[in-house]
Amino acid sequence: MDPRIEDHAEVIVDHSVDVRPDDEVIVSGHPVAEDLVAAIVRLCGKRGANVTTTLRTSQVSAAYKRAIDVDDISLSEVSLAMVEAADVYIGISADTNTHESGDIDPDKNAAMAQANKPIQETYLNKRWVGTQYPAPGNAQDAEMSTATYESFVWDAINKDWAAVREHQQQLVDLLDPAKEVRIVSGDTTDIRMSIAGNPAQNDYAERNLPGGEVFTAPVPNSVNGEVVFDKPLMAQGREIQDVRLRFEGGEVIEHAAAKNEDVLAAVLDTDAGARRLGELGIGMNRDIDQFSYNMLFDEKMGDTVHMALGRAYEDTVGEDNEQNESAVHMDMIVDMSDQSRIEVDGEVIQRDGRFQFEAGFEADWRSPSLSGRSPR
Amino acid sequence: MDPRIEDHAEVIVDHSVDVRPDDEVIVSGHPVAEDLVAAIVRLCGKRGANVTTTLRTSQVSAAYKRAIDVDDISLSEVSLAMVEAADVYIGISADTNTHESGDIDPDKNAAMAQANKPIQETYLNKRWVGTQYPAPGNAQDAEMSTATYESFVWDAINKDWAAVREHQQQLVDLLDPAKEVRIVSGDTTDIRMSIAGNPAQNDYAERNLPGGEVFTAPVPNSVNGEVVFDKPLMAQGREIQDVRLRFEGGEVIEHAAAKNEDVLAAVLDTDAGARRLGELGIGMNRDIDQFSYNMLFDEKMGDTVHMALGRAYEDTVGEDNEQNESAVHMDMIVDMSDQSRIEVDGEVIQRDGRFQFEAGFEADWRSPSLSGRSPR
Repeated sequence: MDPRIEDHAEVIVDHSVDVRPDDEVIVSGHPVAEDLVAAIVRLCGKRGANVTTTLRTSQVSAAYKRAIDVDDISLSEVSLAMVEAADVYIGISADTNTHESGDIDPDKNAAMAQANKPIQETYLNKRWVGTQYPAPGNAQDAEMSTATYESFVWDAINKDWAAVREHQQQLVDLLDPAKEVRIVSGDTTDIRMSIAGNPAQNDYAERNLPGGEVFTAPVPNSVNGEVVFDKPLMAQGREIQDVRLRFEGGEVIEHAAAKNEDVLAAVLDTDAGARRLGELGIGMNRDIDQFSYNMLFDEKMGDTVHMALGRAYEDTVGEDNEQNESAVHMDMIVDMSDQSRIEVDGEVIQRDGRFQFEAGFEADWRSPSLSGRSPR
Repeated sequence: MDPRIEDHAEVIVDHSVDVRPDDEVIVSGHPVAEDLVAAIVRLCGKRGANVTTTLRTSQVSAAYKRAIDVDDISLSEVSLAMVEAADVYIGISADTNTHESGDIDPDKNAAMAQANKPIQETYLNKRWVGTQYPAPGNAQDAEMSTATYESFVWDAINKDWAAVREHQQQLVDLLDPAKEVRIVSGDTTDIRMSIAGNPAQNDYAERNLPGGEVFTAPVPNSVNGEVVFDKPLMAQGREIQDVRLRFEGGEVIEHAAAKNEDVLAAVLDTDAGARRLGELGIGMNRDIDQFSYNMLFDEKMGDTVHMALGRAYEDTVGEDNEQNESAVHMDMIVDMSDQSRIEVDGEVIQRDGRFQFEAGFEADWRSPSLSGRSPR
């Protein structure tokens, strides 16, 4: 077995979900990830925990969705009973063909997700983690060879997460007392928002593996300015490129995209909350140095910032602040590695990807291309 | 997809477990049987049932068993909750290597089976079926190519089970009122037993797929005579060949085997019930025309009889009769195709595999080799 798989299993079992004796553990995933499942199960066995593996394939799931009448879709009592009896849920994304469900009526997918919501709500209250196995289908989505993708995935995952936690805490400590954040990148992005009273969360790979971001929520009505998201994003199975948004009083008042602008428009029209930001995240995992069309990785990419239209996470909204509500949560990414800065209450805390608390940070350096810009 | 797989799925869903709208169905098996799982799930979807697939691999199970301390083995509450919430359980045997667990301490396997007994007891009270998918590892065990084994398995499974039921009922009707059965084969087997008051069961593939036998229980103390089981059998992972048993007053008083006689002796010494017969079965599935080292098939082979040492099935023991109890249930097979007969209360009902109710049956024909035999 590839030693990186054993390392991956150790991060999951010992760090992310901290399996203990007598725990009831569910491991769910595609059989293509069998080696990782076996390594996890072995460690759980060593710790005296019980494990139930529920391997599922997208071929089988798609066969079901294709066959069932949308009116017959209902909650799976068996799956609900499983997660109710569990202490720990480990979900492994992996596929040999990520398009097996490509021909399923979106209404059916939505009805299925809606019917089985109690299952998700149940395991979200347990110790859980979602991770990725570098299967060929996922490598294909990432536009990499399987061997290259394996290195990419395991470099991002197999690290000293205690050290990461400590490093990232420095950013949390800067953001927690902050009132206003300003993000500037090139001559296309200059956006300001209040995060006053909203806590910053340190994602050191407990629930997402890889982790590697610090995130909080903007105060919904406080967002003003313009932003261009230079990394592509997937929505409704289609790739939206170069999204440009202009905010005024928290609302998107102008939008554009180089490709699939109609999909962007549909997302914005979902509900009132879909036109407002629900998340500001700062990617800090520098082992993620390539875009892979997989938000689990992309949003944690080092030297990037992401903002999400739609729903805000409860743990990022202060008691007295408004939590943006929406059916949508669409993350969009800005490259911050060049001609970019993050300001907190007027102070530059990151320039061209370097943080204030890192070597090589230059507080007063001005990018020539930015010097001549007129204020918006 | 191989159309025989779709036929197999139809037999399972429509005949064996009769899936209905709103049923909660569990499909359990190895991912190598993915096509069959997909076909089953598709039919369940069409019928408006919920399905949970719990694919498991022997590599993963073995990894767990190897790692866990025998004292830490306990009931899996997640697996129990699953089967409790289910209406239907479909178990598919299939493997790529049937020896993945070959190096596991037998004590661990036993502790595991003991701990998880409530799971088995729960699904045995639901609609359930156990079947076989012709995977390469199973073909290897059967000493056949995968292609040949596929034909073998699907010929035995994909048939008109309503017609089989009707055909087999003729034998049930002969056995139900019967007092004594005598089995004679060649000059090595001549054994008599009472089945008075014990009902005969018609196995037409409800819980075992393939089905194809009629079985009942001998009255424990009534068995007398000698029998040679000419088909090999597997016990404790080893092959016992040419088992010879002599019964007196229901008990084995002499035993021998051409290979692994010590394993046979160990089985007989398990408990008091292990020295007595718990089952008399008559194989009637003539599409099973080869021995495949898999009791699910072997015991149903056409023109054979099998007897089991040990535990009797509850539904084969009449109210006023004794049910043989034992931790063991070891089936052993006698070829009845040549120089053989079954007598019921002195009347020949099968000769050389032909039943009284079938064309070609000769009631009075005497095999020359038997004519000179001295009575035992």
